[in-house]
Amino acid sequence: MIAQQVEQLLKKMTLKEKVGQLNQKLYGWQVYKRNGDTYELTDMFKQHVEEFQGVGALYGLFRADPWSGVHFGNGIPVEDSLIVTNLVQQYVKENTRLGIPVLFSEECPHGHQALDSTVFPTNIGAGATWNPELQRKVSEYVSTELKEKGVHLGLVSTLDIARDPRWGRTEECFSEDPYLSARMTEAVVKGMQGEKEDKKEVIAVLKHFAAQGSAVGGHNAGPALIGERELREIHIPAMKAGIEAGALACMAAYNEIDGVPCHANSFLLTKLLREELGFEGFVMADGVALERLLHLTGDKELAAKYALEAGVDLSLWDDIYTQIESAVANGVIKEETVDIAVSRILSIKYMLGLFSNEKETTNQIKADREEGKELNLAVARESITLLKNKDSILPLSKQKQTIAVIGPNADNVYNLLGDYTPPQREGAVVTIKEGIVDIAGRDADVLYTKGCDLRTTDKSGFDRAKEIAEEADVVVVALGGSSAREFGMTFHANGAVVNTGNAEMDSGENIDVLDLDLGGVQEDLVKELAAIGKPMIGVFIQGRPHSLANIEEDLDAILIGWYPGQQGGRAIAEILFGEVNPSGRLPISIPSHTGQLPVYYNYKDSGGMRDYYDGVGEAMYPFGYGLSYSTFDYQFDLDEPIHTTKEKLRNGEKVKVEVQVTNEGPYDGNVVMQLYCRDVQSSVTQRIKELKDFQKVWLHAGETKHISLTLDEQDLAIWNIRMEQVLEKGTVILMVGDSPDKLIEKELLID
Amino acid sequence: MIAQQVEQLLKKMTLKEKVGQLNQKLYGWQVYKRNGDTYELTDMFKQHVEEFQGVGALYGLFRADPWSGVHFGNGIPVEDSLIVTNLVQQYVKENTRLGIPVLFSEECPHGHQALDSTVFPTNIGAGATWNPELQRKVSEYVSTELKEKGVHLGLVSTLDIARDPRWGRTEECFSEDPYLSARMTEAVVKGMQGEKEDKKEVIAVLKHFAAQGSAVGGHNAGPALIGERELREIHIPAMKAGIEAGALACMAAYNEIDGVPCHANSFLLTKLLREELGFEGFVMADGVALERLLHLTGDKELAAKYALEAGVDLSLWDDIYTQIESAVANGVIKEETVDIAVSRILSIKYMLGLFSNEKETTNQIKADREEGKELNLAVARESITLLKNKDSILPLSKQKQTIAVIGPNADNVYNLLGDYTPPQREGAVVTIKEGIVDIAGRDADVLYTKGCDLRTTDKSGFDRAKEIAEEADVVVVALGGSSAREFGMTFHANGAVVNTGNAEMDSGENIDVLDLDLGGVQEDLVKELAAIGKPMIGVFIQGRPHSLANIEEDLDAILIGWYPGQQGGRAIAEILFGEVNPSGRLPISIPSHTGQLPVYYNYKDSGGMRDYYDGVGEAMYPFGYGLSYSTFDYQFDLDEPIHTTKEKLRNGEKVKVEVQVTNEGPYDGNVVMQLYCRDVQSSVTQRIKELKDFQKVWLHAGETKHISLTLDEQDLAIWNIRMEQVLEKGTVILMVGDSPDKLIEKELLID
Repeated sequence: MIAQQVEQLLKKMTLKEKVGQLNQKLYGWQVYKRNGDTYELTDMFKQHVEEFQGVGALYGLFRADPWSGVHFGNGIPVEDSLIVTNLVQQYVKENTRLGIPVLFSEECPHGHQALDSTVFPTNIGAGATWNPELQRKVSEYVSTELKEKGVHLGLVSTLDIARDPRWGRTEECFSEDPYLSARMTEAVVKGMQGEKEDKKEVIAVLKHFAAQGSAVGGHNAGPALIGERELREIHIPAMKAGIEAGALACMAAYNEIDGVPCHANSFLLTKLLREELGFEGFVMADGVALERLLHLTGDKELAAKYALEAGVDLSLWDDIYTQIESAVANGVIKEETVDIAVSRILSIKYMLGLFSNEKETTNQIKADREEGKELNLAVARESITLLKNKDSILPLSKQKQTIAVIGPNADNVYNLLGDYTPPQREGAVVTIKEGIVDIAGRDADVLYTKGCDLRTTDKSGFDRAKEIAEEADVVVVALGGSSAREFGMTFHANGAVVNTGNAEMDSGENIDVLDLDLGGVQEDLVKELAAIGKPMIGVFIQGRPHSLANIEEDLDAILIGWYPGQQGGRAIAEILFGEVNPSGRLPISIPSHTGQLPVYYNYKDSGGMRDYYDGVGEAMYPFGYGLSYSTFDYQFDLDEPIHTTKEKLRNGEKVKVEVQVTNEGPYDGNVVMQLYCRDVQSSVTQRIKELKDFQKVWLHAGETKHISLTLDEQDLAIWNIRMEQVLEKGTVILMVGDSPDKLIEKELLID
Repeated sequence: MIAQQVEQLLKKMTLKEKVGQLNQKLYGWQVYKRNGDTYELTDMFKQHVEEFQGVGALYGLFRADPWSGVHFGNGIPVEDSLIVTNLVQQYVKENTRLGIPVLFSEECPHGHQALDSTVFPTNIGAGATWNPELQRKVSEYVSTELKEKGVHLGLVSTLDIARDPRWGRTEECFSEDPYLSARMTEAVVKGMQGEKEDKKEVIAVLKHFAAQGSAVGGHNAGPALIGERELREIHIPAMKAGIEAGALACMAAYNEIDGVPCHANSFLLTKLLREELGFEGFVMADGVALERLLHLTGDKELAAKYALEAGVDLSLWDDIYTQIESAVANGVIKEETVDIAVSRILSIKYMLGLFSNEKETTNQIKADREEGKELNLAVARESITLLKNKDSILPLSKQKQTIAVIGPNADNVYNLLGDYTPPQREGAVVTIKEGIVDIAGRDADVLYTKGCDLRTTDKSGFDRAKEIAEEADVVVVALGGSSAREFGMTFHANGAVVNTGNAEMDSGENIDVLDLDLGGVQEDLVKELAAIGKPMIGVFIQGRPHSLANIEEDLDAILIGWYPGQQGGRAIAEILFGEVNPSGRLPISIPSHTGQLPVYYNYKDSGGMRDYYDGVGEAMYPFGYGLSYSTFDYQFDLDEPIHTTKEKLRNGEKVKVEVQVTNEGPYDGNVVMQLYCRDVQSSVTQRIKELKDFQKVWLHAGETKHISLTLDEQDLAIWNIRMEQVLEKGTVILMVGDSPDKLIEKELLID
């Protein structure tokens, strides 16, 4: 049905009109001008519509941040959103020959990054929840915020795998692990698109495809030197899961893979993505990424040809797809190649119902902001990860006491929110200090001072910090990093940061670091506070793991808060005072030292040395690690090895791994049961450990539950020496537990 | 002719006898026992000959070092060498049915590692000479030392490319660059094997094939995750050059490549090595490497099958190829597969003339030790690399003055020699202190103290160091690392270090580091000496680059001495006092910080960020960098772009890049003209810069010479998107100069 509609429309289109559909050149904030309560479209926009006879998609109409220069004073208030999308839509329909509607695409790395949106924890925190169902609800909520504005495409980072924490975009990754990332990607797609096959209102654009997290040196958009097996094992599973959940769009990644840029990579975008994985949606370019193809081609038409033939359907801000018309005229590109891409864009437009008039309404589906707030709080609570709790210092009692709250991240609004974040209204964000005052302030005295900056060498605040620590019964010190952009910084054409100026931002897009130790004098602050001898809890607000080796011993308790979002301060306070029992588990390993990178848990053991002469090779806290205020005991239902056969697995039979879990501690809480495999008989080298299933289960104090984890054909298949995904006979070691240091083992035998 | 001989012999052989030819299980020092001036063969050896009915090869009969436990007291003096090889050869011939002679293989990473051998600078220093002809002479000399002992196979590291300086075997690599490594490999093969096609007495076993230098994390024998294009561009050129120079043997590498261990990698060892590159020799396993295949297979016979079918012909110490007989009996391996490997071993034995009786002589070819010493000195002189020379502080005058010589590497014999090194006789090695006294001691007062250790935190020697620095006119401080093994350390079955005990060894096989800063309190020593304010020269004796960022400003001059060998101290002193003008150029980039790895110069630019938020991405001193006491000026003969065509190149026509070079300084000296290419129009991403030719040329002060550098089809071909090596039309930027910071540029246009 849609295919026929597309075919008929395509026949009517001129080459220029076709090229217009592949065009997403404009930045949304260049399109409108607000005058009080009214909006007008800019001349730039009108000229653009005239010149290209159409607009394939429009990016970031609602983007508001230092890069776009949009704020509450000049941006679009939520209640006016649909007015503006309708204005644009109407103009394009009325001022082009065929009146093909526009797709609106918006940035949603952790909530829709627009004014008055709900800003959730960044993905690395969402990964730490090990709760895909919660992530599904978040995405569903975000989707509602998009729908009420008339937006069709939500751009979400779900495919990037955090293999090198130097990378500033680590915060956008769910995990270093492909399986956890795949489960989260699936949740995002289901939440954002809904699960009805035929009826979609919002489509998730999964980014980035592929292997950006393996860029050499942790360099943003740096080359990935990896081979095909590493690609398939680590970077493809999330996309596969996304496609199986119905994903209809993805964004190509900036990086190259073994010499071939993703944007010119037909193996990746056509053979693997479409022919193997069965993807039927469209591929969007990353921002001005097509211009980077000039590094190869030295020629714009050739760059357009490479990308279009490889499988990039829709441009983003570049001046490359604008050359397609002349490239066809010059014989560089065949019009049939253009038609394929145009069909994919038009199909989505039909599928979304853009051609039917019923969509043009000002009746808004209101997202319930209170619901969003509760959901936001729920994710923050589950994301916070307890790594150390010496002598059960946590939870703190709420008794009368003096609490010193210190540190550059203790009372800073934007540092809690991560990169891409829009301006916040007064009161929209709860800081850690505010959370502590809210929860404990009735009985306790809360003293606060910043102590130091994140990155400067200024120690002038140390004295006051030590003063309040001396007065206090307990010290909470909030450290880490920041991805908060500020107005006045300079940016690339793709929004990445060129220069942070005086801002403290030391993480985020294009902010890669070569040293994972805490910045500035933060470690010195900890050392000087530790010398006072008061119980001290470190809370780390950060988008990437910092090495904690230098200060681990100085802290009695360590909480990793990631970027916990607008409700983050409240969630952290709830955990500090035991209103919530922590249940986060590390989605990424925390290194002991920058020099030991890479330090992900699922490495390959080819018999070489793991440790260094001058330090350990293993992470300080590995993937999957995390404490609860309770302790959990568990054992297999049956001690014997499990037997199965390749045939049974191929027929869909699952291996069930049955475990009894008891909450032996005094608190109700979540256990995160993790199932790892190690294949010890195979035709190619396997990893030391691979996550293959997990389940987060609530247990009352003293309660015992029966948990069933499963493995299917997909989980047990390997990429063999001929690069076929096959089951092989032999022994697999199964490891189960709620933390990688407490795994119980048994064998699975495949015949 | 040989093929027929092999075929006939093979027909006579039982399976057991065949398997015996693939066997190199014994450690040479287990084979004999010296009693005063006489030698007897051990029962272990005799039983082994009986059990396997033959010995394919015997490793390390002459090895002497802490691992083997062999020293002057129990080892084989040079003059007895042939007696022992003849004894072994005779025994095998007389005590096996067919009397097939043994191949003797010996370790020659930087000279034959035997008692009284000439110990040359390690390869990283040899690479710094940029003088392949000198390396050819060294290898020819080493070959003579081998011949006089009746040895047939010289094991030389030439194929490893130093991509991660954390790796302890960096010292065994010629370079981070494939082209420089290829030229050096070619030189080694020609020198060691000679250039006559038919008549070989010694064969170079090139190691390791392939990609060990790309092991993840700098972990020795760790997995290489790289793709095929990275493999071909970086790790294959040296082997290709070796084969073109006549190489008849290589050793497989411990690592895996994208999931497939080299020892089980038929793509690597058969398709690429034999079918593509035309290799006709044999492949040796690395020490006990075949046992690491148990990580995959969990089964010895299967491990033997994987390796044999992939193309490993000869074992080393493992208990895997000993299983071939039963594996054939059990139907796991076909006898025809065994025959192929056996034929390759037998072919080499025929080619070396082992079956003819004329070789059994006690007439020794005496290597001229004095000639070896001169050659050794020549390499050391050319390897030493001057990185900084503030206010032309160097060369020092020989006038009356007081010189303070300080540092853990200033007067240590073994630290100058690198890993694998045999015990040294008193007086065999000139230390830096000794070299300085020899050259300047008549006129100058030379004060010496150690100051500190390489790795301990002991500062008790600082006071004396500062005392003599106060007294001195100039300070020479010798720092760095050490690969010196000591008796009493513990070792793996493959000779790699398990535990260094109290030894200072912080580099070498299995000694990888996670921090490239100098060890122990060396940096503190520099800081405290710098505070005194005397002119200070840093000399770095090391097998890997250390980061110099913390002390660079404290030193007026910086010399990298690598491991300069037995004559190293003399060469360094000659350079300090201007008897020799330094001409080394960095064969590996020196990082600013461990966290910026990888930092090799020939990275790919896919448009991403190179710098980090907290530091530069570029090396502190890049590949190719190095100063002379003179300065050189150069310009192209013609300014115009050079034009050529694919056809001309395919027909063998070379592009000539003509340069005039003038020595503008007051010293005679070598210039190292380097030619780099950057292909700016291509179908896959190219590197920012690639070395494609170089020439080291002697110029008297004031002299001008004309230098012609060339590019051929091979130099300009790229591995395209279909992984074919092809010429592509377009522009290539040519860059020429004697240091990467002083390159002149012009264009090459290929039509």
